[in-house]
Amino acid sequence: MKKIYVYDSTLRDGAQAQGISFTVEDKLKIVKRLDKLGLDYIEAGNPGSNPKDLEFFQRVKNLNLKNAKIIAFGSTRRAGIKVEDDDNIKSLIKAGTSAIAIFGKSWDFHVTEVLKTTLDENLSMIYDTVRYLKDQGKEVVFDAELFFEGYKDNPGYAMETLKAAYSAGADCLCLCETTGGSFPTEIYEVTAKVVKEFPTVIGIHCHNDSGMAVANTIMAVQAGAVQVQGTMNGIGERCGNANLCTVIPNLQLKLGYRCIPEENMKYLSSASRYLSEVANIPHDERAPYVGSSAFAHKAGMHSDAVGKNPKTYEHIDPSLVGNMRTILMSEVAGRSAVLNLVNHVDSSITKDSPVTKKILERLKELEYEGYQYEGAESSFELEIRKILGKYKEYFQLGEFKVIVNEPSLYNINSSAMIKIKVGDQEEITAAEGDGPVNALDKALRKALERFYPQIKEMKLTDFKVRVLDSTSATAAKVRVLIESTDGEEVWTTIGVSTDIIDASWKALVDSIEYKLIKDFEENGTVKDCVEDLFHSAE
Amino acid sequence: MKKIYVYDSTLRDGAQAQGISFTVEDKLKIVKRLDKLGLDYIEAGNPGSNPKDLEFFQRVKNLNLKNAKIIAFGSTRRAGIKVEDDDNIKSLIKAGTSAIAIFGKSWDFHVTEVLKTTLDENLSMIYDTVRYLKDQGKEVVFDAELFFEGYKDNPGYAMETLKAAYSAGADCLCLCETTGGSFPTEIYEVTAKVVKEFPTVIGIHCHNDSGMAVANTIMAVQAGAVQVQGTMNGIGERCGNANLCTVIPNLQLKLGYRCIPEENMKYLSSASRYLSEVANIPHDERAPYVGSSAFAHKAGMHSDAVGKNPKTYEHIDPSLVGNMRTILMSEVAGRSAVLNLVNHVDSSITKDSPVTKKILERLKELEYEGYQYEGAESSFELEIRKILGKYKEYFQLGEFKVIVNEPSLYNINSSAMIKIKVGDQEEITAAEGDGPVNALDKALRKALERFYPQIKEMKLTDFKVRVLDSTSATAAKVRVLIESTDGEEVWTTIGVSTDIIDASWKALVDSIEYKLIKDFEENGTVKDCVEDLFHSAE
Repeated sequence: MKKIYVYDSTLRDGAQAQGISFTVEDKLKIVKRLDKLGLDYIEAGNPGSNPKDLEFFQRVKNLNLKNAKIIAFGSTRRAGIKVEDDDNIKSLIKAGTSAIAIFGKSWDFHVTEVLKTTLDENLSMIYDTVRYLKDQGKEVVFDAELFFEGYKDNPGYAMETLKAAYSAGADCLCLCETTGGSFPTEIYEVTAKVVKEFPTVIGIHCHNDSGMAVANTIMAVQAGAVQVQGTMNGIGERCGNANLCTVIPNLQLKLGYRCIPEENMKYLSSASRYLSEVANIPHDERAPYVGSSAFAHKAGMHSDAVGKNPKTYEHIDPSLVGNMRTILMSEVAGRSAVLNLVNHVDSSITKDSPVTKKILERLKELEYEGYQYEGAESSFELEIRKILGKYKEYFQLGEFKVIVNEPSLYNINSSAMIKIKVGDQEEITAAEGDGPVNALDKALRKALERFYPQIKEMKLTDFKVRVLDSTSATAAKVRVLIESTDGEEVWTTIGVSTDIIDASWKALVDSIEYKLIKDFEENGTVKDCVEDLFHSAE
Repeated sequence: MKKIYVYDSTLRDGAQAQGISFTVEDKLKIVKRLDKLGLDYIEAGNPGSNPKDLEFFQRVKNLNLKNAKIIAFGSTRRAGIKVEDDDNIKSLIKAGTSAIAIFGKSWDFHVTEVLKTTLDENLSMIYDTVRYLKDQGKEVVFDAELFFEGYKDNPGYAMETLKAAYSAGADCLCLCETTGGSFPTEIYEVTAKVVKEFPTVIGIHCHNDSGMAVANTIMAVQAGAVQVQGTMNGIGERCGNANLCTVIPNLQLKLGYRCIPEENMKYLSSASRYLSEVANIPHDERAPYVGSSAFAHKAGMHSDAVGKNPKTYEHIDPSLVGNMRTILMSEVAGRSAVLNLVNHVDSSITKDSPVTKKILERLKELEYEGYQYEGAESSFELEIRKILGKYKEYFQLGEFKVIVNEPSLYNINSSAMIKIKVGDQEEITAAEGDGPVNALDKALRKALERFYPQIKEMKLTDFKVRVLDSTSATAAKVRVLIESTDGEEVWTTIGVSTDIIDASWKALVDSIEYKLIKDFEENGTVKDCVEDLFHSAE
């Protein structure tokens, strides 16, 4: 099996995406997780451009990494000065990594228009910088910025830039498709020429502006590139970078290359989710291999066929990448799909048990009311528990009152009072919030924490509202979906009502009950099947 | 320029995506918009599997479509029965479209494992069904389901299935990569063989399970396919379908094919956003070409270079697809587009009037707060009036108080008290409702009717809620859109706040103010100029 070196740039190119900002702590957490996954290189920042990055490079030395080399990233020396006098180069050395990536321009247009220097000086800048870093004993990756764009305009000069880096001793020449505008066949042809010309490690770095970053990366590997650069979940400048969570399984599970240790492939989905969690962005449910919908089957025909043999509509076994098959709980889903969920609660129940029919009828009823359990299986699990008599009420609502005032005092116009009962003990409390739902959420947690301190571990991570039959306007039914996590597991609950407060309340109660059942009655919850998926870096 | 036929399946394959559910009204709106964009085929549903679809096919006949043919989609006849006795085929005919798509199995494994019939019977099912529909005078697209998967296992049989459809008279043979597991080079080679074998229209239908649906589609076209199937924004089963919003500009702007009328390319971004709005899903900011980040430059170096020459870091000019460069937004922001709306209020204002700049700045500010005026132009007209001094306050809010009680009395748990002032007269009143927004809506109208009886003519017809930045959970900002009508005109208003009551209130007030301005001051409606501005399908 040919080894392909995986080079992650989530912390550098990924951090250039709109809405992404990593703290030093975030970066250290991510490094640990990616090292555990078995990546070869982690490009972690530009110490010359960012003081936060210098602190990071000091602290990352204390981690005991097993697989990954940390890379400090920077530019070639500036035009017209000596390498050793360039402040950015000094910062790169100061970062103290054993490997360094240097980018230089391979498009003549950029040399004259952006750098405003001569083509020859640009070649010297590349040569001098690589040579200097090699003399310092560093492993050097040369990132040929805008290589494919440059090759189209002036192939001779683009090749000259590679030659400058190669003859200065660069350990890897990485071909960058910086503006993301190239096509698979172009990438293949140009990469093949470079591979033929330079007997060293050739890398590939693609962007997704034409929606083909993954395919372009694969084509480059098929043309002989052996280092793939990309980011977790494809985050990056503009439309993002090649998504390593897609590139890795494509190469390793389908084409027989070796990217990461085989035994780590099953941690890919959880690593991908972890990354989104730390970056505080929603995880793309449609992401290939690792998304929550990647193996979700909705159309009746598809669900039935997958029930007969999963290979009928699945390109790989989802467990290979630590993902799961979901048969969406919808009107089209069949009996066997529901049974999967029922068996989480009680494994003795079969397709033909009388209670299975009862559960299906209840599902239909609830769907008719506007519930939709695809993506909210945790609420449906609670319904199943109620029918099976395996439901315990952890608290009872006495009453609540939510008040919204306009004009508001101190910019807070919503408050909630709540009274609950746990066993024979009562608690009454109140809270203010940004809007009525937030106030009610806060008040409920405040009331319950005395009885169930683990509720502090849990937080709401997503809140969605969908108006059903929106043509009834403000009297229409609304469906609220709430996603929660306790750091270990993520679950989604649902509530439906003509009243948004009431719908939110239902989803909130389900979310908290699910957490408590999970903690107190572990056996038979969905958690068993997903336990292994979570591969915490901590 | 070679013509490529664009075949949209948003309403069929797209509707199979997790979380997507279109009403008949939604479907009709989308058809109008896609027809206007200039697509060739719109696959709109499976009349055999869904009674809602039959209603749609009846109503779609009344639209006067200019470009697109509507396609009804269904399966070949079932095994062992006559075509004319098959209920699904009867429904297809009943749909009354001039073109029909029929899918049949091209993978022998599916024939034996899922259909549980013989390979010969499967060929007859394909032949008989296509033949029957051709005899009814239909244009027939044959979707060779799982063609690439089948070709890998048993190439001879896969080709036999195409032959059956071809010899029965199919107008197009569409090669489906149903499980999304193929690689670009495989797609190219297999498609080229089919193109050589069958002198008819060859189509391609790819899924994104390996993150390469767009690249695979392009490779098939390069191998000779002339029909591309996909969906708007790539929504679809599991990881989705080939994204037409990427495929179309890739083919037309980069490779010189003709997909849609050249003058419509600039409406691609707004059509893509419109689709997300109607489907009530967030628009992917990272989407190639049409995403809000697709031409956003963050890294200082990139912004600087783009300032010197946009070509340095942009693969195309964003205006070609109706998108915008983000760093220059204040300068461009569709000045002439906004001017249309401004001129509706005051026709003397020009592009260079100082007030135009002021309005653009206000627009930018409001967009930053989460307002989005595409689809809510009436609220933006009120903003323009305020800046131009052409705004009159028809009433003032004194105060309101909304109370939600649980448990509720008589099933009504929301009530609102409101005090307003019109001139120097005050009115205080209260109302109950289904939820707090409904109660507030009723109370406000009740208070105003004494002063403005024409408010009785008006009713709310649609109410939509979108959570912005949903990861802040219950403290997230919400955007509320309200559609109203007085029987003569339909208008939409918007409100944004962290508090759903406050957001709804803002949209309610705008809606009523718009109605009163319309009645007292208007010399025509805003609708005409907005139509052109946003290429609205309404």
